Amino acid sequence: MVHHGLWRVQNVHTQALTITRQDRERLNGHHGRVIWFTGLSGAGKSTLANALEVELHRLGRRTYLLDGDNIRQGLNNDLDFTDVDRVENIRRIAEVSKLMMDAGLMVMTAFISPFRGDREMARELIGTENFFEVYVSTSLEVCEQRDVKGLYKKARNGLLTNMTGLNSPYEVPERPDIELDCANVTAGLAITRILSLITAQ
Amino acid sequence: MVHHGLWRVQNVHTQALTITRQDRERLNGHHGRVIWFTGLSGAGKSTLANALEVELHRLGRRTYLLDGDNIRQGLNNDLDFTDVDRVENIRRIAEVSKLMMDAGLMVMTAFISPFRGDREMARELIGTENFFEVYVSTSLEVCEQRDVKGLYKKARNGLLTNMTGLNSPYEVPERPDIELDCANVTAGLAITRILSLITAQ
Repeated sequence: MVHHGLWRVQNVHTQALTITRQDRERLNGHHGRVIWFTGLSGAGKSTLANALEVELHRLGRRTYLLDGDNIRQGLNNDLDFTDVDRVENIRRIAEVSKLMMDAGLMVMTAFISPFRGDREMARELIGTENFFEVYVSTSLEVCEQRDVKGLYKKARNGLLTNMTGLNSPYEVPERPDIELDCANVTAGLAITRILSLITAQ
Repeated sequence: MVHHGLWRVQNVHTQALTITRQDRERLNGHHGRVIWFTGLSGAGKSTLANALEVELHRLGRRTYLLDGDNIRQGLNNDLDFTDVDRVENIRRIAEVSKLMMDAGLMVMTAFISPFRGDREMARELIGTENFFEVYVSTSLEVCEQRDVKGLYKKARNGLLTNMTGLNSPYEVPERPDIELDCANVTAGLAITRILSLITAQ
């Protein structure tokens, strides 16, 4: 039957007929991984993730950075900052990270991700051997002093609810793969430490 | 101030400090693109998309295939097959495709995507210069005759609502970039035609 032509493609060739994560990793020359940055607003997650991506790219790694800029205005533009929506926000980010890892990429995520349960969900979904939790532990004091986006001031003035660290909780990671406080470590050293962690495997 | 160390990374280096789509494309040696397969259940979208990925991978392209297997059970596992949920299903797929294209990948999507408005939304979001709509126009008759997943039979027996082509509409593309009917074209020729389309640019 002529109209079965399309299906027969699965039998006529002898090479691999489905491209797997392993195939993509072989082509890229490295593994797909997820490096999950967590910490307060203004702690330095995006800056650090961005600097890490620059360095990985320089080393020829295939990378992507998921952050508020490309997620909140796109995929998750239907979500708010309530607890329920924050859980869904992180769930989707974890799922997209997993897909991108499956595509052979080293994925960095830079979101507050304040709830321990959500981060554990992400780790479980992605697989603990693929998942690196980077806790950017810069103190609330320092974050609020800097207040890059003016969010802490807004929250203090009662114009912003659900501000993590002020009127919404941040659950400190119990066993992060690495902890970095920007008051105690230079960016260069931070990147070096993360690199040695993720390339040690 | 020591705790500003992290931020200073944006100034101390002279090389590019943010990795862009263009940087990733340069590293990959090709453009990021989205090849969007649409058509009835059983038309051959997944088979064709899969065969295309195999060929692109063989040519050294960085690829990913989004389909029901990796989307419905993951990112979109909270969605049903109602009209509202189908719109949201396609919206998320379009957003993830866009992110993956931004990551420098050639992305194939294999979903019925029955509504014209949704596919236009996807095209607009992704950018018409990046977006190829492949209409797999295998007739309902042929799809139902094959009925690989047994869905048509289930729908005919009243066990399945929202079956595209039977009790839910399929809006035929008006100007697809390419149209392929598996009753009229072999898989090999179909792939050749798609390849020449997406590499013509």
